[in-house]
Amino acid sequence: MTEELENEYTSIPNGKAGLVERIKSGASESHSQTVMGIGDDCAILDYGSADTLMSTTIFAEGIHFDLTYTPIKHLGYKVVVAAISDILAMNGTPLHVSIALAVSNKVMQQHILEFYDGVHAACHEYDIDLVGGDLSTARTGVTIAVTAMGEAYDNEIVYRNGAQPTDLICVTGNLGGAYMGLQLLEREKTLFNANPGQQPQLSGNDYILRRQLKPEAKAEVLKYLKAKDVKPTAMINLSSGLASELMNICRASKMGCEIFEERIPIHPDTEKMAKEFNINPIVTALNGGEDYELLFTIPLGCYEKIKENDFFSIIGSINKEELGSNVVLRDGSIIPLEPSLNSQTFQNQ
Amino acid sequence: MTEELENEYTSIPNGKAGLVERIKSGASESHSQTVMGIGDDCAILDYGSADTLMSTTIFAEGIHFDLTYTPIKHLGYKVVVAAISDILAMNGTPLHVSIALAVSNKVMQQHILEFYDGVHAACHEYDIDLVGGDLSTARTGVTIAVTAMGEAYDNEIVYRNGAQPTDLICVTGNLGGAYMGLQLLEREKTLFNANPGQQPQLSGNDYILRRQLKPEAKAEVLKYLKAKDVKPTAMINLSSGLASELMNICRASKMGCEIFEERIPIHPDTEKMAKEFNINPIVTALNGGEDYELLFTIPLGCYEKIKENDFFSIIGSINKEELGSNVVLRDGSIIPLEPSLNSQTFQNQ
Repeated sequence: MTEELENEYTSIPNGKAGLVERIKSGASESHSQTVMGIGDDCAILDYGSADTLMSTTIFAEGIHFDLTYTPIKHLGYKVVVAAISDILAMNGTPLHVSIALAVSNKVMQQHILEFYDGVHAACHEYDIDLVGGDLSTARTGVTIAVTAMGEAYDNEIVYRNGAQPTDLICVTGNLGGAYMGLQLLEREKTLFNANPGQQPQLSGNDYILRRQLKPEAKAEVLKYLKAKDVKPTAMINLSSGLASELMNICRASKMGCEIFEERIPIHPDTEKMAKEFNINPIVTALNGGEDYELLFTIPLGCYEKIKENDFFSIIGSINKEELGSNVVLRDGSIIPLEPSLNSQTFQNQ
Repeated sequence: MTEELENEYTSIPNGKAGLVERIKSGASESHSQTVMGIGDDCAILDYGSADTLMSTTIFAEGIHFDLTYTPIKHLGYKVVVAAISDILAMNGTPLHVSIALAVSNKVMQQHILEFYDGVHAACHEYDIDLVGGDLSTARTGVTIAVTAMGEAYDNEIVYRNGAQPTDLICVTGNLGGAYMGLQLLEREKTLFNANPGQQPQLSGNDYILRRQLKPEAKAEVLKYLKAKDVKPTAMINLSSGLASELMNICRASKMGCEIFEERIPIHPDTEKMAKEFNINPIVTALNGGEDYELLFTIPLGCYEKIKENDFFSIIGSINKEELGSNVVLRDGSIIPLEPSLNSQTFQNQ
């Protein structure tokens, strides 16, 4: 199992078939919607009278991930989380993923199987069936494309464009952790490259590292909202920073907004690391990416129903477009909300 | 439009959004099944009471295509054809594609748009809606992942595993052309690299070049079979050579087969070029790939209905498994049917 893919995969007739067989054996087919998964020209899915939601995301080595510090099993987990987050962001139920992988001959077969261990773990965690994909050699590097599919009924779907004046702006979990985890990993990589004798100093930073390397999807909040009979008016997946995603909602809805620095949820560990890097913590939330939290708006009238909850924070409200989109800082000053490309995140979407 | 993507795409805030807008503007949404295409976290599709067929294929530069001689517009066309061929091979109707693209900063924005011109042309030709995808930078090269989706009713779907003894083995069009087109392009590239003053000699070989660079999908034959009330017992997309795909049907169906060299359809231009390369033409059909023809089996009793048709050739018949899988050569000798990995095709699936 330590031979290179070159030997296992391209030179042995059953190399690829054997690998696919192994991957298939770890894939559960637990949903009634899964008529047939891996094994023919197509997967066959039956969404009955529900609509099918579908989203494709691509991850390129050196752009979205760095294998020098990313455990490849975590990468398999993360790409599934990232992809199904798009289904959740339409208020849908993710059910299926298909994964296409192109890897250079230098990648060992063992590592491909570890990647799929991570995929299977995420599928198990979020009750997803892996129903297909492709496996190819590549000249260099690793590229991963994940297509997530799920279902939703017409009246449940939440678009980006439904925000209305006075709607409350809500965000799940907390922000900026994945970004600071990335900064830490990049710093330690740089130091290690300069002085290979010095071991990376990562201990005590589990939280932000986990946010970067093994994020989780926010399925629970949708169940909570449904139980409270609250349907968001607009929703989006926070794959990029809060600033650019909130602007996406505002643009699509033709609205403005006002959010408050003091209400933006930032974990103490994120704040601590930001200060160590001389970064204003709010920048990590506004411009960092890969948090995979959900950003959504709900009618003001729903406030009483959700004012005490463990899932999300209310960070501001939607305004008419002509009032602009602004952040109110702790000192009372107001700055325009602007998506910045200065954040050094790998995420590029 | 001749600036590099680096400038257009990663340094300008609206670079990617602008590009996506251009791509979206060329994408038609003609199907009633397309509730919403590009523009939110997901595409929304409504397959009603039909099953959803889904297939993902990945194409890596240097493995599946060589941009030194592949017009990038043709590449966009080809990846759509390749992907929807998997839907056709289940006897389904392809309706939607989503395309994820990772390209290095060296690729010009203009070329990305040309790639999508090809995608749009194929979508127009085959009545497909482009409903989503992703666009990312990559450290090197170009990687393309295409997810095709379509619909079929339960009783229409054709699997690989339904072939029965005495079934006729049929193949659409002709085989080996894409492979010989590739050999020609590779030869001329080698000669050009050795002597850049010498122009590639490609004229007079339009047919095999088109088979390699701009293949077509075989949707018509399915309509013909339906009109004749003939349902294949097994079917597969000929993305790899005839030998390996027929073995896939035989293995899945637990059957053997006998095919006849003299009945395997090979175009005169393919035969001519094979002889120029000192390749036995049958090898191009058995082991060449990327023909995207359909290989299927039909009950012997249907022979009278289809014996005169313009879409496919009958090349042999299915046997019991214990009789093995063989090719009867023109001289009457018999050789075992074996998928060979010796074909120097880029296709790797």
